[in-house]
Amino acid sequence: MTVGSLLVRATMQQPLASASRRSLARSRLLSTTTRSSPLSSALANRTARTTSLAQTSFRRAFADAAAPPPAPKRKRFRFFRWAYRLTLLSGLGLTGYLAYSIYVLRHPEEQLEPDPSKKTLVILGSGWGAVSLLKKLDTENYNVVVISPRNFFLFTPLLPSCTTGLIEHRSIMEPIRNILRHKKATVKYYEAEATKIDYEKRVVYISDDSEIKGDVSHTVVPFDMLVVGVGAENATFGIPGVREHSCFLKEVGDAQKIRKRIMDCVETAVFKDQTDEEVKRLLHMVVVGGGPTGVEFAGELQDFFEDDLRKWIPEIQDNFHVTLVEALPNILPMFSKQLIEYTESSFKEEKITIRTKTMVKNVTDKYIEAQVTKPDGTTELERIPYGLLVWATGNAVRGVVRDLMEQIPAQKDSRRGLAVNEYLVVNGTENIWAVGDCAITNYAPTAQVAGQEGAFLARLFNTMAKTEAIETELKKLSVAQQEAKGDEERNHVFEEIKERQRQLRRTKQIGPFQYSHQGSLAYIGKERAVADISWLSGNIASGGTMTYLFWRSAYLSMCFSARNRVLVATDWIKAKIFGRDVSRE
Amino acid sequence: MTVGSLLVRATMQQPLASASRRSLARSRLLSTTTRSSPLSSALANRTARTTSLAQTSFRRAFADAAAPPPAPKRKRFRFFRWAYRLTLLSGLGLTGYLAYSIYVLRHPEEQLEPDPSKKTLVILGSGWGAVSLLKKLDTENYNVVVISPRNFFLFTPLLPSCTTGLIEHRSIMEPIRNILRHKKATVKYYEAEATKIDYEKRVVYISDDSEIKGDVSHTVVPFDMLVVGVGAENATFGIPGVREHSCFLKEVGDAQKIRKRIMDCVETAVFKDQTDEEVKRLLHMVVVGGGPTGVEFAGELQDFFEDDLRKWIPEIQDNFHVTLVEALPNILPMFSKQLIEYTESSFKEEKITIRTKTMVKNVTDKYIEAQVTKPDGTTELERIPYGLLVWATGNAVRGVVRDLMEQIPAQKDSRRGLAVNEYLVVNGTENIWAVGDCAITNYAPTAQVAGQEGAFLARLFNTMAKTEAIETELKKLSVAQQEAKGDEERNHVFEEIKERQRQLRRTKQIGPFQYSHQGSLAYIGKERAVADISWLSGNIASGGTMTYLFWRSAYLSMCFSARNRVLVATDWIKAKIFGRDVSRE
Repeated sequence: MTVGSLLVRATMQQPLASASRRSLARSRLLSTTTRSSPLSSALANRTARTTSLAQTSFRRAFADAAAPPPAPKRKRFRFFRWAYRLTLLSGLGLTGYLAYSIYVLRHPEEQLEPDPSKKTLVILGSGWGAVSLLKKLDTENYNVVVISPRNFFLFTPLLPSCTTGLIEHRSIMEPIRNILRHKKATVKYYEAEATKIDYEKRVVYISDDSEIKGDVSHTVVPFDMLVVGVGAENATFGIPGVREHSCFLKEVGDAQKIRKRIMDCVETAVFKDQTDEEVKRLLHMVVVGGGPTGVEFAGELQDFFEDDLRKWIPEIQDNFHVTLVEALPNILPMFSKQLIEYTESSFKEEKITIRTKTMVKNVTDKYIEAQVTKPDGTTELERIPYGLLVWATGNAVRGVVRDLMEQIPAQKDSRRGLAVNEYLVVNGTENIWAVGDCAITNYAPTAQVAGQEGAFLARLFNTMAKTEAIETELKKLSVAQQEAKGDEERNHVFEEIKERQRQLRRTKQIGPFQYSHQGSLAYIGKERAVADISWLSGNIASGGTMTYLFWRSAYLSMCFSARNRVLVATDWIKAKIFGRDVSRE
Repeated sequence: MTVGSLLVRATMQQPLASASRRSLARSRLLSTTTRSSPLSSALANRTARTTSLAQTSFRRAFADAAAPPPAPKRKRFRFFRWAYRLTLLSGLGLTGYLAYSIYVLRHPEEQLEPDPSKKTLVILGSGWGAVSLLKKLDTENYNVVVISPRNFFLFTPLLPSCTTGLIEHRSIMEPIRNILRHKKATVKYYEAEATKIDYEKRVVYISDDSEIKGDVSHTVVPFDMLVVGVGAENATFGIPGVREHSCFLKEVGDAQKIRKRIMDCVETAVFKDQTDEEVKRLLHMVVVGGGPTGVEFAGELQDFFEDDLRKWIPEIQDNFHVTLVEALPNILPMFSKQLIEYTESSFKEEKITIRTKTMVKNVTDKYIEAQVTKPDGTTELERIPYGLLVWATGNAVRGVVRDLMEQIPAQKDSRRGLAVNEYLVVNGTENIWAVGDCAITNYAPTAQVAGQEGAFLARLFNTMAKTEAIETELKKLSVAQQEAKGDEERNHVFEEIKERQRQLRRTKQIGPFQYSHQGSLAYIGKERAVADISWLSGNIASGGTMTYLFWRSAYLSMCFSARNRVLVATDWIKAKIFGRDVSRE
């Protein structure tokens, strides 16, 4: 265990010692792409302590200045009166701020038109990498074109909650237009899939693959600079039947499909004259992959059963069962040992079965064939019946990325994606950058890494544009210097040149990309979560109900927009009041 | 125009004279299946007048009783203080009531087990007819089995709002389980399609047609009594291409498909290098059918464009166009002439084109071929390019209903559905009833009619059960009378028999089904609606913004549950604050 880390497993209701709780509350969290809004802060109760301090000093100052005639009977209520006024004031302030940010959100201003003299920057994708780049990019420096088959950004960490209807999928989607219309200069967006990148010709081939196609549905987009942020595909490791019979958990459509299938399994299980064995099969929900996605989904699903399904459809209560399958000896490999143990014991309590060292070999429509390693080291082939199979294991390279890799000799040793240098330039190219899951860096393929990479590229591109602008000015000035008449004028121009050169030196100092790990979080069901948070030079590991509240407030503050934040909070309240919806749709 | 009706077209902001406004506000509304809850009443501001009366008298009574020492300075604020307190109190009362009803909703009680000695009542469907029957039926009198491929009730009047995301579809869905779990005795539900009703054998063949099937996916359900409430299919009138290329607007899936297609058309129109003509085609949204559904959808779609689409995707603003096509000379045939004219002028202002006397003859993937009747009476064939086609024209008989009709000789002249007698018994049978769009009565196939029919059947079945119970008792009593010893005992039994007979006479008096028309409502876009409301012996016709507020409060109060009401209101507020979502999903 690293310095500063602690874990209080025994007291689960209050798993954190008060010292670490305060540090946690003060620690700034996870995503660099979003800042915590007042709303989320309020929800996280982070400001409680500072407010009460401010309150005390404010009260004293006012008392000195105004000195009202003593009214001894009312004195003891004074604290409450001021507390009430301050609460009211901060409430009003918060509402005002929220209203203002929503007003700004809904009233985009006129945008600058594209300037043909500028370079064309093409961005492929609308995920964490692409969107955090777009958010920070000064679009007036380039003609920016965004290409993605998905015209919205998806806040993926909350996707497992969508599978059970705890959160509606639209609450974690932010339309790409809402982002682009607020940029200073117009950004073009095409809803299309990039089918091929031609590095030689500097063009991208795009194709409209959606249901409705126009006369033109394939075309070519030329680029001067290209950012590849297309992400990755779901890895099936060549296991037969996975693509046909299982659900993935990467896109909105996946979550909807799972939600529909859960209810379909339940309804089919209570169909008239169904045999006991078949009922058991249909109600066996299997999750393959012991990473955070798999663990969170298993937890959410068990919650759904405990809170809602068993109440409305009592017939299924003896047979509904969630199993988590993992090929490795442990689940949640990125978390510390104590948290893994805590998760395992918590799952046991929730009646979720964990089957580690179980490697899926084949999937048919009703059965999973898996190789199970027994405690004595021998292996055995087992046939596991299932109703729903969710596959949450890992990433595979997309076709368009593999094709690009084949065009560039420097990429020939790369397997898992585009090898990039420390400035995220694709090795072997000079005008292609890669971010997110399609780029191979030293870091894990997470949303956190992709977001930081995108933000880094935005800074890089903004600096590049500034540098070029200064260099153009310098050229002009040196001409002016030569043409200047008299010493005074020449000196004046010389001073200006020196000033520009100083500016240039300052702006050029942009270091290579460095990832700063903020921590890992996972929900494990029954209103409990686990967290491994980087704190100073150490690490804080915690699990339990308090961590769950922290998990909620952290995710809320990481949401893309104030709109998303309000919608997610509303969904949580809705589910608390009314429960989850058991309609199949 | 009927007595009492009025229309103020000139002043659109305040289209109703205050007298009629008050009557409107007092009129009890539309559906007999739902009663207005306090929440909806508050929203409709109906209680304002009575509250202020109560307030005055309450204040006076308090002043007489308590007679506090005079405090002249505070006297003039007394009214406001009391108004504040009363508002607070009624607010608290409302919240309490809502909380209580939600608590009841979420905590179903234990249910009675099925009793094999009782008759089996099978109900096919989960629409307006079936659900309003279920709501009022005393399930302990029968073994009730519900069969429907849709495990939720859908509040269809608000479906057009779902197509643009003003309302989320889940807000107008109520899981059938939530209804059934609150009945006194267990009600079995099978998610399946009824494929065949065998009248001779008294069985229904059912089939699970959803994606996930168990070992048993076809089976047979025997019945003693059967209620057919399966509704109707979309009518295409045999016009080629309609089923392949157009969207209907009957189910939740239809609304989702339309929502996706609207955005798909827009994104395809702004695809790179699309020709002008193709852009115009893709952005031409055609609605066929000038009934309330078609009119409401056209209005909602134009709203979506005006409020949101043109702001986020300015490129499309010159080409987006909505056209309403109707074969008859008028739209909204069930409304009064003034309202039709008001709707037409309102649509003109909103830039929605109405094309009456235009009969669709053929539909291909990009064009509609229509026969247009010109003012001089001649006809012409026209080719109309379209991006989205919504088909909202009428009903056709479902296969399972047609099959049943063929089994019963008395139904051989029936074309549009099951002919029923005045007690909704299917002609030629004695134990099959039909409700809603699959039954042919003298009334239009609307939700209002179906709801009233369902409620009528519930009363009928409850009475039948009561009658049977009394008759059984009577038989027992007459045996007891014969076996009685002594005059006194005999007289006592005789008195009881008379009492039972009196009860029997009372309960047997259930008249035939009579539909009571409450009125017609339609939203026509731009925050305006039209309403034809039955009031006393006359009719009130009104249109405009006030009618729109009335439309909203009426629909809110008609929602199935408190849950639906809160969700719909939340959606309206959400859309008001954040606008509609322009993501394609």
